[in-house]
Amino acid sequence: MALKLIIGNKNYSSWSLRPWLALSALGIPFEEILVPLDAPDFKARIWERSPAGKVPVLIDGEATVWESIAILEHLAERFPDKGVWPSDPAARAHARSLATEMHNGFGALRSVAPMNLWRPVEPRAFPEAALKDVRRIMRRWNEARERFGAGGDFLYGAFSGADAMYAPVATRIRTYAIEVDPVSAAYVEAIHAHPAFVAWKEAALRETGVLPEDEVDWPTVKRV
Amino acid sequence: MALKLIIGNKNYSSWSLRPWLALSALGIPFEEILVPLDAPDFKARIWERSPAGKVPVLIDGEATVWESIAILEHLAERFPDKGVWPSDPAARAHARSLATEMHNGFGALRSVAPMNLWRPVEPRAFPEAALKDVRRIMRRWNEARERFGAGGDFLYGAFSGADAMYAPVATRIRTYAIEVDPVSAAYVEAIHAHPAFVAWKEAALRETGVLPEDEVDWPTVKRV
Repeated sequence: MALKLIIGNKNYSSWSLRPWLALSALGIPFEEILVPLDAPDFKARIWERSPAGKVPVLIDGEATVWESIAILEHLAERFPDKGVWPSDPAARAHARSLATEMHNGFGALRSVAPMNLWRPVEPRAFPEAALKDVRRIMRRWNEARERFGAGGDFLYGAFSGADAMYAPVATRIRTYAIEVDPVSAAYVEAIHAHPAFVAWKEAALRETGVLPEDEVDWPTVKRV
Repeated sequence: MALKLIIGNKNYSSWSLRPWLALSALGIPFEEILVPLDAPDFKARIWERSPAGKVPVLIDGEATVWESIAILEHLAERFPDKGVWPSDPAARAHARSLATEMHNGFGALRSVAPMNLWRPVEPRAFPEAALKDVRRIMRRWNEARERFGAGGDFLYGAFSGADAMYAPVATRIRTYAIEVDPVSAAYVEAIHAHPAFVAWKEAALRETGVLPEDEVDWPTVKRV
Protein backbone atom coordinates (compact mmCIF):
# COMPACT_ATOMS: atom_id res chain seq x y z
CA MET A 1 0.00 0.00 0.00
CA ALA A 2 1.51 3.28 -1.11
CA LEU A 3 2.24 6.01 1.39
CA LYS A 4 0.01 9.06 1.08
CA LEU A 5 1.29 12.51 2.01
CA ILE A 6 -1.26 15.26 2.47
CA ILE A 7 0.21 18.71 1.96
CA GLY A 8 -0.88 22.32 1.53
CA ASN A 9 0.24 24.86 -1.04
CA LYS A 10 3.69 24.40 -2.42
CA ASN A 11 4.55 28.07 -2.54
CA TYR A 12 3.83 28.89 1.08
CA SER A 13 3.61 25.73 3.14
CA SER A 14 7.11 25.23 4.49
CA TRP A 15 5.88 22.44 6.75
CA SER A 16 4.52 20.58 3.73
CA LEU A 17 7.83 20.95 1.90
CA ARG A 18 9.78 19.22 4.64
CA PRO A 19 8.41 15.64 4.53
CA TRP A 20 7.69 15.91 0.79
CA LEU A 21 11.34 16.71 0.16
CA ALA A 22 12.53 13.89 2.42
CA LEU A 23 10.34 11.36 0.63
CA SER A 24 11.29 12.62 -2.82
CA ALA A 25 15.00 13.10 -2.25
CA LEU A 26 15.42 9.77 -0.45
CA GLY A 27 13.54 7.82 -3.09
CA ILE A 28 10.60 6.64 -1.01
CA PRO A 29 7.55 6.24 -3.28
CA PHE A 30 4.42 8.09 -2.19
CA GLU A 31 1.21 9.59 -3.47
CA GLU A 32 0.82 13.30 -2.92
CA ILE A 33 -2.56 14.72 -1.96
CA LEU A 34 -2.64 18.50 -2.16
CA VAL A 35 -5.31 20.36 -0.19
CA PRO A 36 -4.95 24.09 -0.87
CA LEU A 37 -4.63 26.06 2.36
CA ASP A 38 -7.18 28.55 1.08
CA ALA A 39 -9.79 25.94 0.15
CA PRO A 40 -13.00 26.88 1.97
CA ASP A 41 -13.27 23.35 3.32
CA PHE A 42 -9.55 22.92 4.10
CA LYS A 43 -10.14 22.37 7.79
CA ALA A 44 -12.95 19.87 7.21
CA ARG A 45 -10.87 17.87 4.76
CA ILE A 46 -7.84 17.77 7.04
CA TRP A 47 -9.80 17.05 10.22
CA GLU A 48 -11.08 13.90 8.54
CA ARG A 49 -7.53 12.66 8.38
CA SER A 50 -5.65 14.21 11.28
CA PRO A 51 -6.57 15.02 14.88
CA ALA A 52 -4.53 18.21 14.69
CA GLY A 53 -6.30 19.58 11.61
CA LYS A 54 -3.03 20.63 10.01
CA VAL A 55 -0.81 19.60 7.12
CA PRO A 56 1.39 17.70 6.55
CA VAL A 57 -0.13 14.31 7.33
CA LEU A 58 1.37 10.97 6.32
CA ILE A 59 -0.91 7.98 5.91
CA ASP A 60 0.85 4.63 5.92
CA GLY A 61 -1.75 1.88 6.01
CA GLU A 62 -3.30 1.92 9.47
CA ALA A 63 -0.81 4.48 10.70
CA THR A 64 -1.55 8.21 10.47
CA VAL A 65 1.33 10.51 11.40
CA TRP A 66 1.23 14.26 11.73
CA GLU A 67 3.92 16.82 12.71
CA SER A 68 6.83 16.85 10.27
CA ILE A 69 9.49 15.54 12.63
CA ALA A 70 7.23 12.64 13.64
CA ILE A 71 6.78 11.86 9.95
CA LEU A 72 10.55 11.80 9.47
CA GLU A 73 11.02 9.50 12.46
CA HIS A 74 8.26 7.23 11.17
CA LEU A 75 10.03 7.06 7.81
CA ALA A 76 13.42 6.41 9.45
CA GLU A 77 11.91 3.43 11.23
CA ARG A 78 9.93 2.09 8.28
CA PHE A 79 12.70 2.53 5.70
CA PRO A 80 15.93 2.02 7.64
CA ASP A 81 18.03 1.79 4.45
CA LYS A 82 16.88 5.09 2.93
CA GLY A 83 19.15 7.31 4.98
CA VAL A 84 16.59 9.54 6.67
CA TRP A 85 19.31 9.99 9.30
CA PRO A 86 23.04 9.43 8.76
CA SER A 87 24.25 5.99 9.79
CA ASP A 88 27.23 7.05 11.93
CA PRO A 89 25.91 7.21 15.53
CA ALA A 90 27.39 10.61 16.40
CA ALA A 91 26.19 12.15 13.12
CA ARG A 92 22.81 10.51 13.51
CA ALA A 93 22.29 11.93 17.00
CA HIS A 94 23.40 15.35 15.79
CA ALA A 95 21.10 15.25 12.76
CA ARG A 96 18.13 14.14 14.81
CA SER A 97 18.72 16.92 17.34
CA LEU A 98 19.24 19.61 14.71
CA ALA A 99 16.13 18.56 12.82
CA THR A 100 14.11 18.68 16.03
CA GLU A 101 15.44 22.13 16.90
CA MET A 102 14.08 23.35 13.59
CA HIS A 103 10.74 21.77 14.38
CA ASN A 104 10.53 23.52 17.67
CA GLY A 105 12.44 26.73 17.32
CA PHE A 106 13.68 29.71 15.36
CA GLY A 107 10.24 31.26 15.69
CA ALA A 108 11.50 34.82 15.40
CA LEU A 109 12.84 34.15 11.91
CA ARG A 110 9.86 32.08 10.86
CA SER A 111 7.37 34.74 11.88
CA VAL A 112 8.93 37.60 9.90
CA ALA A 113 10.32 35.70 6.90
CA PRO A 114 7.65 33.37 5.54
CA MET A 115 8.62 30.95 2.81
CA ASN A 116 7.46 32.41 -0.48
CA LEU A 117 9.01 30.78 -3.50
CA TRP A 118 7.63 33.10 -6.16
CA ARG A 119 8.68 36.31 -4.41
CA PRO A 120 11.38 38.18 -6.32
CA VAL A 121 14.65 38.13 -4.42
CA GLU A 122 14.93 41.35 -2.44
CA PRO A 123 16.43 42.29 0.92
CA ARG A 124 14.11 43.05 3.80
CA ALA A 125 15.00 44.58 7.16
CA PHE A 126 14.57 42.10 9.98
CA PRO A 127 14.41 42.58 13.74
CA GLU A 128 17.44 41.57 15.76
CA ALA A 129 15.68 38.45 17.13
CA ALA A 130 15.27 37.07 13.62
CA LEU A 131 18.90 37.79 12.75
CA LYS A 132 19.93 36.06 15.94
CA ASP A 133 18.02 32.99 14.76
CA VAL A 134 19.91 33.18 11.46
CA ARG A 135 23.22 33.28 13.32
CA ARG A 136 22.23 30.31 15.45
CA ILE A 137 21.22 28.35 12.36
CA MET A 138 24.50 29.23 10.64
CA ARG A 139 26.42 27.96 13.66
CA ARG A 140 24.50 24.67 13.50
CA TRP A 141 25.07 24.33 9.75
CA ASN A 142 28.77 25.07 10.07
CA GLU A 143 29.17 22.59 12.88
CA ALA A 144 27.36 19.84 10.98
CA ARG A 145 29.27 20.51 7.75
CA GLU A 146 32.61 20.65 9.55
CA ARG A 147 32.15 17.56 11.69
CA PHE A 148 30.03 15.33 9.48
CA GLY A 149 29.67 16.82 6.02
CA ALA A 150 32.75 15.45 4.26
CA GLY A 151 30.92 13.00 1.98
CA GLY A 152 28.77 15.50 0.08
CA ASP A 153 27.22 18.95 -0.13
CA PHE A 154 24.57 18.54 2.56
CA LEU A 155 24.68 18.92 6.33
CA TYR A 156 25.78 15.33 6.90
CA GLY A 157 27.27 14.74 3.45
CA ALA A 158 24.44 12.94 1.66
CA PHE A 159 20.96 14.45 1.78
CA SER A 160 19.14 13.54 5.02
CA GLY A 161 16.06 14.40 7.01
CA ALA A 162 17.95 17.31 8.57
CA ASP A 163 18.28 18.91 5.14
CA ALA A 164 14.57 18.41 4.57
CA MET A 165 13.90 20.28 7.81
CA TYR A 166 16.20 23.21 7.00
CA ALA A 167 15.35 23.55 3.29
CA PRO A 168 12.69 26.21 3.95
CA VAL A 169 15.30 28.26 5.83
CA ALA A 170 17.57 28.02 2.79
CA THR A 171 14.76 29.47 0.67
CA ARG A 172 14.22 32.31 3.15
CA ILE A 173 17.90 33.19 3.10
CA ARG A 174 17.76 33.43 -0.66
CA THR A 175 14.36 35.12 -0.99
CA TYR A 176 15.17 37.85 1.51
CA ALA A 177 18.82 38.13 0.44
CA ILE A 178 20.06 37.50 3.98
CA GLU A 179 23.83 37.64 4.25
CA VAL A 180 25.41 34.44 5.45
CA ASP A 181 28.91 32.99 5.79
CA PRO A 182 30.48 31.06 2.87
CA VAL A 183 29.75 27.59 4.27
CA SER A 184 26.09 28.48 4.76
CA ALA A 185 25.91 30.15 1.35
CA ALA A 186 27.22 26.99 -0.33
CA TYR A 187 24.69 24.94 1.57
CA VAL A 188 21.84 27.23 0.48
CA GLU A 189 23.00 26.66 -3.10
CA ALA A 190 23.11 22.89 -2.62
CA ILE A 191 19.51 22.85 -1.40
CA HIS A 192 18.35 24.95 -4.35
CA ALA A 193 20.20 22.66 -6.79
CA HIS A 194 18.75 19.40 -5.48
CA PRO A 195 16.48 17.88 -8.15
CA ALA A 196 13.70 17.20 -5.66
CA PHE A 197 13.72 20.81 -4.49
CA VAL A 198 13.82 22.04 -8.09
CA ALA A 199 10.73 19.93 -8.84
CA TRP A 200 8.90 21.32 -5.80
CA LYS A 201 9.78 24.89 -6.67
CA GLU A 202 8.63 24.49 -10.27
CA ALA A 203 5.32 23.16 -9.03
CA ALA A 204 5.07 26.06 -6.56
CA LEU A 205 5.63 28.59 -9.33
CA ARG A 206 3.08 26.85 -11.51
CA GLU A 207 0.66 26.88 -8.58
CA THR A 208 0.98 30.64 -8.29
CA GLY A 209 0.74 31.14 -12.04
CA VAL A 210 4.33 32.27 -12.47
CA LEU A 211 5.01 29.55 -15.04
CA PRO A 212 2.53 28.47 -17.69
CA GLU A 213 0.91 25.11 -17.03
CA ASP A 214 2.58 23.38 -19.91
CA GLU A 215 6.13 24.10 -18.81
CA VAL A 216 5.98 21.75 -15.87
CA ASP A 217 5.09 18.10 -15.88
CA TRP A 218 3.40 17.52 -12.58
CA PRO A 219 1.04 14.63 -13.10
CA THR A 220 0.98 13.24 -9.59
CA VAL A 221 -0.81 16.15 -7.94
CA LYS A 222 -4.24 15.09 -6.88
CA ARG A 223 -6.41 17.93 -5.63
CA VAL A 224 -9.00 16.67 -3.19
CA MET B 1 28.97 2.67 28.79
CA ALA B 2 26.11 4.08 30.81
CA LEU B 3 23.83 6.74 29.35
CA LYS B 4 24.21 10.16 30.92
CA LEU B 5 21.27 12.56 31.12
CA ILE B 6 22.00 16.19 31.92
CA ILE B 7 19.04 17.97 33.44
CA GLY B 8 18.14 21.22 35.20
CA ASN B 9 16.17 21.75 38.37
CA LYS B 10 13.59 19.13 39.16
CA ASN B 11 11.00 21.55 40.46
CA TYR B 12 10.82 23.82 37.44
CA SER B 13 12.42 22.15 34.43
CA SER B 14 9.56 20.45 32.65
CA TRP B 15 11.82 19.67 29.70
CA SER B 16 14.21 17.86 32.00
CA LEU B 17 11.40 15.83 33.51
CA ARG B 18 10.32 14.40 30.16
CA PRO B 19 13.34 12.25 29.16
CA TRP B 20 14.18 11.54 32.81
CA LEU B 21 10.72 10.08 33.31
CA ALA B 22 10.92 8.05 30.10
CA LEU B 23 14.27 6.56 31.10
CA SER B 24 13.15 5.86 34.67
CA ALA B 25 9.68 4.55 33.93
CA LEU B 26 10.83 2.34 31.05
CA GLY B 27 13.70 0.85 33.03
CA ILE B 28 16.61 2.14 30.96
CA PRO B 29 19.64 2.58 33.26
CA PHE B 30 21.26 6.03 33.20
CA GLU B 31 23.35 8.39 35.22
CA GLU B 32 21.74 11.72 36.05
CA ILE B 33 23.82 14.90 36.00
CA LEU B 34 21.99 17.84 37.50
CA VAL B 35 23.13 21.35 36.57
CA PRO B 36 20.98 23.87 38.47
CA LEU B 37 19.38 26.36 36.10
CA ASP B 38 20.42 29.18 38.44
CA ALA B 39 24.06 28.14 38.65
CA PRO B 40 26.14 31.15 37.59
CA ASP B 41 28.04 28.97 35.13
CA PHE B 42 25.00 27.01 33.89
CA LYS B 43 25.43 28.15 30.30
CA ALA B 44 29.16 27.42 30.25
CA ARG B 45 28.64 23.94 31.64
CA ILE B 46 25.89 23.10 29.18
CA TRP B 47 27.62 24.62 26.15
CA GLU B 48 30.47 22.22 26.77
CA ARG B 49 28.10 19.38 26.13
CA SER B 50 25.41 20.64 23.77
CA PRO B 51 25.42 23.00 20.79
CA ALA B 52 22.07 24.40 21.88
CA GLY B 53 23.18 25.32 25.38
CA LYS B 54 20.01 23.92 26.93
CA VAL B 55 18.94 20.98 29.04
CA PRO B 56 18.08 18.16 28.70
CA VAL B 57 21.02 16.54 26.95
CA LEU B 58 21.57 12.80 26.58
CA ILE B 59 25.09 11.45 26.14
CA ASP B 60 25.28 7.93 24.78
CA GLY B 61 28.90 7.12 24.01
CA GLU B 62 29.88 9.14 20.97
CA ALA B 63 26.30 10.32 20.45
CA THR B 64 25.05 13.56 22.03
CA VAL B 65 21.32 14.22 21.67
CA TRP B 66 19.46 17.34 22.69
CA GLU B 67 15.77 18.31 22.38
CA SER B 68 13.50 16.01 24.38
CA ILE B 69 11.66 14.44 21.44
CA ALA B 70 14.97 13.65 19.72
CA ILE B 71 16.13 12.01 22.95
CA LEU B 72 12.97 9.85 23.00
CA GLU B 73 13.47 8.84 19.36
CA HIS B 74 17.10 8.03 20.06
CA LEU B 75 16.01 5.82 22.95
CA ALA B 76 13.29 4.16 20.86
CA GLU B 77 15.92 3.20 18.31
CA ARG B 78 18.59 2.12 20.81
CA PHE B 79 16.25 0.18 23.07
CA PRO B 80 13.55 -1.20 20.77
CA ASP B 81 12.20 -3.56 23.46
CA LYS B 82 11.66 -0.92 26.14
CA GLY B 83 8.38 0.40 24.79
CA VAL B 84 9.26 4.04 24.23
CA TRP B 85 6.46 3.92 21.67
CA PRO B 86 3.60 1.39 21.62
CA SER B 87 4.23 -1.59 19.33
CA ASP B 88 0.93 -1.52 17.41
CA PRO B 89 1.61 0.53 14.24
CA ALA B 90 -1.48 2.75 14.47
CA ALA B 91 -0.91 3.43 18.18
CA ARG B 92 2.78 4.00 17.58
CA ALA B 93 2.15 6.60 14.87
CA HIS B 94 -0.43 8.30 17.07
CA ALA B 95 1.89 8.34 20.10
CA ARG B 96 4.80 9.70 18.09
CA SER B 97 2.62 12.46 16.64
CA LEU B 98 1.05 13.39 19.97
CA ALA B 99 4.44 13.51 21.68
CA THR B 100 5.78 15.74 18.93
CA GLU B 101 2.80 18.08 19.19
CA MET B 102 3.66 18.57 22.83
CA HIS B 103 7.25 19.32 21.87
CA ASN B 104 6.21 21.95 19.42
CA GLY B 105 2.96 23.37 20.69
CA PHE B 106 0.60 24.42 23.43
CA GLY B 107 2.71 27.49 24.00
CA ALA B 108 -0.16 29.55 25.40
CA LEU B 109 -0.62 27.12 28.28
CA ARG B 110 3.10 26.65 28.83
CA SER B 111 3.75 30.37 29.06
CA VAL B 112 1.16 31.13 31.74
CA ALA B 113 1.25 27.89 33.73
CA PRO B 114 4.85 26.95 34.47
CA MET B 115 5.52 23.59 36.06
CA ASN B 116 6.07 24.21 39.75
CA LEU B 117 5.90 21.09 41.85
CA TRP B 118 6.17 22.67 45.28
CA ARG B 119 3.46 25.27 44.66
CA PRO B 120 0.39 24.71 46.83
CA VAL B 121 -2.57 23.67 44.70
CA GLU B 122 -4.65 26.73 43.96
CA PRO B 123 -6.74 27.87 40.99
CA ARG B 124 -5.46 30.66 38.81
CA ALA B 125 -7.34 32.58 36.12
CA PHE B 126 -5.98 31.83 32.67
CA PRO B 127 -6.44 33.59 29.35
CA GLU B 128 -8.71 31.96 26.80
CA ALA B 129 -5.78 30.88 24.62
CA ALA B 130 -4.37 28.77 27.45
CA LEU B 131 -7.75 27.20 28.15
CA LYS B 132 -8.05 26.41 24.48
CA ASP B 133 -4.73 24.56 24.70
CA VAL B 134 -6.12 22.60 27.66
CA ARG B 135 -9.19 21.63 25.63
CA ARG B 136 -7.03 20.54 22.71
CA ILE B 137 -4.86 18.45 25.00
CA MET B 138 -7.95 16.87 26.60
CA ARG B 139 -9.23 15.93 23.14
CA ARG B 140 -5.90 14.26 22.34
CA TRP B 141 -5.83 12.41 25.65
CA ASN B 142 -9.40 11.22 25.25
CA GLU B 143 -8.76 10.03 21.72
CA ALA B 144 -5.62 8.14 22.72
CA ARG B 145 -7.26 6.57 25.77
CA GLU B 146 -10.37 5.59 23.84
CA ARG B 147 -8.61 4.14 20.80
CA PHE B 148 -5.45 2.70 22.28
CA GLY B 149 -5.57 2.87 26.08
CA ALA B 150 -7.31 -0.40 26.93
CA GLY B 151 -4.28 -2.18 28.38
CA GLY B 152 -3.53 0.23 31.23
CA ASP B 153 -3.94 3.65 32.80
CA PHE B 154 -1.73 5.61 30.41
CA LEU B 155 -2.41 7.17 27.01
CA TYR B 156 -1.58 3.98 25.12
CA GLY B 157 -2.19 1.57 27.97
CA ALA B 158 1.31 0.97 29.30
CA PHE B 159 3.50 3.98 30.07
CA SER B 160 5.20 5.30 26.90
CA GLY B 161 7.20 8.25 25.66
CA ALA B 162 3.95 10.11 25.03
CA ASP B 163 3.19 10.02 28.75
CA ALA B 164 6.66 11.31 29.49
CA MET B 165 5.97 14.26 27.18
CA TYR B 166 2.59 15.10 28.73
CA ALA B 167 3.50 14.51 32.38
CA PRO B 168 4.35 18.20 32.96
CA VAL B 169 0.90 19.11 31.66
CA ALA B 170 -0.61 16.72 34.17
CA THR B 171 1.25 18.57 36.93
CA ARG B 172 0.01 21.93 35.67
CA ILE B 173 -3.57 20.72 35.67
CA ARG B 174 -3.19 19.67 39.27
CA THR B 175 -1.12 22.63 40.49
CA TYR B 176 -3.47 25.24 39.03
CA ALA B 177 -6.63 23.22 39.75
CA ILE B 178 -7.70 23.32 36.11
CA GLU B 179 -11.03 21.60 35.55
CA VAL B 180 -10.86 18.68 33.15
CA ASP B 181 -13.14 15.88 31.98
CA PRO B 182 -13.20 12.55 33.89
CA VAL B 183 -10.94 10.69 31.43
CA SER B 184 -8.32 13.42 31.65
CA ALA B 185 -8.68 13.64 35.44
CA ALA B 186 -8.03 9.90 35.77
CA TYR B 187 -5.00 10.26 33.53
CA VAL B 188 -3.62 13.11 35.63
CA GLU B 189 -3.98 10.83 38.66
CA ALA B 190 -2.20 7.98 36.87
CA ILE B 191 0.78 10.21 36.09
CA HIS B 192 0.99 11.44 39.68
CA ALA B 193 0.82 7.85 40.98
CA HIS B 194 3.59 6.47 38.77
CA PRO B 195 6.57 5.50 40.96
CA ALA B 196 9.04 7.26 38.67
CA PHE B 197 7.06 10.49 38.84
CA VAL B 198 6.70 10.15 42.63
CA ALA B 199 10.49 9.81 42.88
CA TRP B 200 11.05 12.90 40.72
CA LYS B 201 8.56 14.96 42.69
CA GLU B 202 10.09 13.97 46.01
CA ALA B 203 13.48 15.05 44.73
CA ALA B 204 11.98 18.31 43.45
CA LEU B 205 10.48 19.06 46.85
CA ARG B 206 13.76 18.25 48.54
CA GLU B 207 15.53 20.53 46.08
CA THR B 208 13.31 23.42 47.06
CA GLY B 209 13.61 22.65 50.77
CA VAL B 210 10.03 21.55 51.21
CA LEU B 211 11.09 18.18 52.59
CA PRO B 212 14.02 17.70 54.93
CA GLU B 213 17.03 16.10 53.30
CA ASP B 214 16.77 12.88 55.22
CA GLU B 215 13.24 12.05 54.12
CA VAL B 216 14.26 11.23 50.58
CA ASP B 217 16.90 8.82 49.45
CA TRP B 218 18.30 10.36 46.31
CA PRO B 219 21.88 9.16 46.08
CA THR B 220 22.32 9.30 42.31
CA VAL B 221 22.17 13.06 41.92
CA LYS B 222 25.55 14.37 40.92
CA ARG B 223 25.81 18.14 40.95
CA VAL B 224 28.43 19.32 38.50
